[in-house]
Amino acid sequence: MSRSFKILSAKAAAQLDKELMSTGAFSIDQLMELAGLAVAKAIYAEYPPRHKQTQNSPLQKILVLVGPGNNGGDGLVAARHLRTWGAYDPVLYYPKRSTHNQLYANLVKQLQELGVKEISTLEEIKSLLSKEGEVGVILDALFGFSFKPPVRDPFKDVIAFLSTHHHELPPIVSVDIPSGWDVDEGPTDVDINASMLISLSAPKPCAERFVNSGPDKKHYLGGRFISPAIAKKYGIEDILDKYKGDELITKL
Amino acid sequence: MSRSFKILSAKAAAQLDKELMSTGAFSIDQLMELAGLAVAKAIYAEYPPRHKQTQNSPLQKILVLVGPGNNGGDGLVAARHLRTWGAYDPVLYYPKRSTHNQLYANLVKQLQELGVKEISTLEEIKSLLSKEGEVGVILDALFGFSFKPPVRDPFKDVIAFLSTHHHELPPIVSVDIPSGWDVDEGPTDVDINASMLISLSAPKPCAERFVNSGPDKKHYLGGRFISPAIAKKYGIEDILDKYKGDELITKL
Repeated sequence: MSRSFKILSAKAAAQLDKELMSTGAFSIDQLMELAGLAVAKAIYAEYPPRHKQTQNSPLQKILVLVGPGNNGGDGLVAARHLRTWGAYDPVLYYPKRSTHNQLYANLVKQLQELGVKEISTLEEIKSLLSKEGEVGVILDALFGFSFKPPVRDPFKDVIAFLSTHHHELPPIVSVDIPSGWDVDEGPTDVDINASMLISLSAPKPCAERFVNSGPDKKHYLGGRFISPAIAKKYGIEDILDKYKGDELITKL
Repeated sequence: MSRSFKILSAKAAAQLDKELMSTGAFSIDQLMELAGLAVAKAIYAEYPPRHKQTQNSPLQKILVLVGPGNNGGDGLVAARHLRTWGAYDPVLYYPKRSTHNQLYANLVKQLQELGVKEISTLEEIKSLLSKEGEVGVILDALFGFSFKPPVRDPFKDVIAFLSTHHHELPPIVSVDIPSGWDVDEGPTDVDINASMLISLSAPKPCAERFVNSGPDKKHYLGGRFISPAIAKKYGIEDILDKYKGDELITKL
């Protein structure tokens, strides 16, 4: 199948991120805010919130699986926007967090201000997902393009669970990379079978594997902050033309 | 005329900003990014870019008047998004800039990366605006809610010029406060006669004067980052309900 988009290797993606923060003069706060906002917009577009029965009926939940790095940070920002919009009520699973990163601590505090609850074990994840209709979407913000297999504890059991039970679960939406996949090679021995992928900045090599892995796979692009000069340098000029008007995301 | 929105006094607005950054744990980078994005979205919604004659015809310009504080920062962010979207080609007028604020310096560098040009004198402003159809919108990001009249140099002459010539000029869009106005009292001896006001977080007292100052005044709300708890504390809960779906701005 021919590819309709340019891709960015893991190495190029890491260089691009560095360049956005040096030559581009972006702060990580800015980039993560725009990336997370794009993730929230894409989820809203593809899985709009269920119509509430009454004014007081609770919001449907979104289970947000947060990894230790920037991919997790994007998930925290997305969760905040979805809650601020009154679209979904996020439940956080964020078992491995940096104690010295003020930005991540602040992103969590912003969610606490919104009354967002946390869970911390696989048993709680199973219990939450066992309630019919309670969770509308699972957001996979565990690992990004710098992840190298194999999956390690404490995420190993969670990913194995998703991989085994995905047929009975709400749709899984992955940020940038389906967690557990190798960014360049694609699926490893575990596959969470994400329904939707949101590529940030530009699709990574495994995005091609993702769209070819089933007829119903949904692929979005977000993170509209690349300048034409940087896009040209990385050979991804076509990416800038994918967006129309003032949209922050686009379906590829 | 009865007011259809709650307002926030200058004092309350300053407290709210502080609270967003303390209890709310937001960084100024995050808030400014979201505020500036809302400004860009509102401009795009109300003054969509002119259709380009050919692929190579130049973008219409937006003259961005940037003040020394946060209001100016919002303008810099808005200019970047409009340029990134290929909507407008910003021309910056930013005569009084802090030398020790890294964020503002970075916001300017982001614009330079996009090839954005700067001008520095009133004569250049006059020359730019004298070219028929060259400039589509003037973005007034000079002063925000902490401004106290009178207007001082180097902005005095610019505001006097806009005030005198607004009938012959492109529409003026003001960020949060029409520059030169007192946030609580409204117009002073100079009035740039803005066509559109974008209230950030919540309208300030002078917004009421603005909408009542003419039948064609356009009023938008942006900055959708207030939690229900903070909104309740400041008596602006109704503001959260103005937005629909996942929109980042709304027309009031």
